[in-house]
Amino acid sequence: MEIASKEAVKALGMTWTNPLVGAVIVKNGQVLASGYHHQFGQEHAEVNALNQLDDIKQAQGATLYVTLEPCSHYGKQPPCCQKVAEAGIKEVIIGQIDPHGIVAGKGIKYLNEHGVKTKVLGGTEKLNEAYNFFYQYHRPLVTLKYAMSLDGKLNGAEKARTLLTGPKAQYDVQKLRLHQQAILIGANTLRIDNPQLTVRIQALPQPPIRIILTHDANQLDLTQNLFKLPGPIWLLSQTELKGKARDNVHCFVAHKWTPQKIGELLAEREIQSLLVEGGSNLLAEFLAAGLADQIVAYIAPIVLGGTALPVAVGAALAQKLKYQLIAVQELGQDIRITARRK
Amino acid sequence: MEIASKEAVKALGMTWTNPLVGAVIVKNGQVLASGYHHQFGQEHAEVNALNQLDDIKQAQGATLYVTLEPCSHYGKQPPCCQKVAEAGIKEVIIGQIDPHGIVAGKGIKYLNEHGVKTKVLGGTEKLNEAYNFFYQYHRPLVTLKYAMSLDGKLNGAEKARTLLTGPKAQYDVQKLRLHQQAILIGANTLRIDNPQLTVRIQALPQPPIRIILTHDANQLDLTQNLFKLPGPIWLLSQTELKGKARDNVHCFVAHKWTPQKIGELLAEREIQSLLVEGGSNLLAEFLAAGLADQIVAYIAPIVLGGTALPVAVGAALAQKLKYQLIAVQELGQDIRITARRK
Repeated sequence: MEIASKEAVKALGMTWTNPLVGAVIVKNGQVLASGYHHQFGQEHAEVNALNQLDDIKQAQGATLYVTLEPCSHYGKQPPCCQKVAEAGIKEVIIGQIDPHGIVAGKGIKYLNEHGVKTKVLGGTEKLNEAYNFFYQYHRPLVTLKYAMSLDGKLNGAEKARTLLTGPKAQYDVQKLRLHQQAILIGANTLRIDNPQLTVRIQALPQPPIRIILTHDANQLDLTQNLFKLPGPIWLLSQTELKGKARDNVHCFVAHKWTPQKIGELLAEREIQSLLVEGGSNLLAEFLAAGLADQIVAYIAPIVLGGTALPVAVGAALAQKLKYQLIAVQELGQDIRITARRK
Repeated sequence: MEIASKEAVKALGMTWTNPLVGAVIVKNGQVLASGYHHQFGQEHAEVNALNQLDDIKQAQGATLYVTLEPCSHYGKQPPCCQKVAEAGIKEVIIGQIDPHGIVAGKGIKYLNEHGVKTKVLGGTEKLNEAYNFFYQYHRPLVTLKYAMSLDGKLNGAEKARTLLTGPKAQYDVQKLRLHQQAILIGANTLRIDNPQLTVRIQALPQPPIRIILTHDANQLDLTQNLFKLPGPIWLLSQTELKGKARDNVHCFVAHKWTPQKIGELLAEREIQSLLVEGGSNLLAEFLAAGLADQIVAYIAPIVLGGTALPVAVGAALAQKLKYQLIAVQELGQDIRITARRK
């Protein structure tokens, strides 16, 4: 299963909206073949592993290890269960049940009905945290990400961008974005930081949707960096966009965009993960709404002082929120803290 | 020298205003004796080591390792140099030159003039950071200490004490205070947190002086926890204290107590280290004054949100301050970051 998991992560960032899946075929204690799901719309892991065999007859009587329950439905690909059963696989060891309603135990049922033994091992849930979260809670897994000074500030007092972190932390942000299907910032952050919000370390078939929350989409400066780059851009505005924007820009209009409403919009469109990158008002809104499932905080050994902008400004909490510390990493001179809501 | 350093730290918190010193006597590759300076006013490390010998004659031709240059003056104790030379020690290996003006090379000179070879090895400076800092810069080494939430806040919005950290971090604060000769807080922090500001893990001959910065000493509530406990308390006030306080309370009056002025007061009284424990205005003042030599920040996996009190509020910085990351430690669910001003 460990080999299967390693296979699965080879496609990190590439499979959306499908999960990462890896598979290994074993017979008489020997690994005969392995495979993974490379990209949305392409073959599933099980089929890729079967295709790796010198002769499909080798599968007869073999055991298949797969990180996620094999699918049982016709989607972009015919159901894996059928292919697995037809190939003569004797037993399927499964990392986790697929929480997607279209599978959710039906794969196992199909296999059992076709003479294939199954066993659910558990332990591969971390491969697809957002996918699992989405099908459990029916909304995206929300991660708040920010870089702050040692004294808990986002930005200097002068309302210009304050670059706090070094190259290792900046590279780490790129890796963090690889796990995300959407990235959200506020219009002030767009104006002040002028970010790209792209994944630059890897070409992705479906890069994260870049979402800007704004009162009035017509007041955005469409010459900023973000708009120069390809990939979908969503504007969440209270007013309809009047001018003509490029084809990759889509404007959604609502009377008021609360974190809940943003979550609903994303859920409707099967967006399983959202990274909120600031600024301080938007971070405070998501915290107050109880919609900050994870926090990734980078801390730089810099002090910005008593008039600088705090991480969260505005919306009050009803009570303090408790998180579980997941990881503390030193990235050059910076520190990354990962925490999950308790 | 490693053994000598281990000896030295046995007296952590006990020797003020003297430095920590350890000594080892070696002959023919054998450790004959070791010793350390136990407490202010008592024997120095070299003498303690000599006294450990079964017979003082064993010292003849031996090598003395000592973490700090032996003293050459009559203080509470006769000069160690003289005793070392008289005992017949052949060579003294010294961890660091004593920066105190009363020694500062005079020990080495004395030894050399009395036929004892000397060698300065370096590397023991960390034993006495505040002591070294004080005699180099003629002011106390200032450490800012605070506990903050994941979103960089000190306290909830409700102006009551928000306990953020767990028992391991709280114990660590006790160890941190062991290194300090004075602890400073503002009157608001005294009122809201009602702290003791004591070292409770060890009985100290001279516990850190607890200092309260206040506009008007007469408005302090002298029934708070701090005043119930023995050990010196200083009030830095703009007004003279009118009522009668207990003998351990001393009121200093100035028109305005800036961080510089506080540093001068402490320097005049040979206070080598100061721990500033908040609140947010006082922290901002010390940062803005460039008088935050070290920062010890505890980060708790808690979020306080958009209306909570930031770490530093008030005084602006002329520019961002750069620190060097010294250590990152996990203390239960909390994190301690230690950083030093670049």
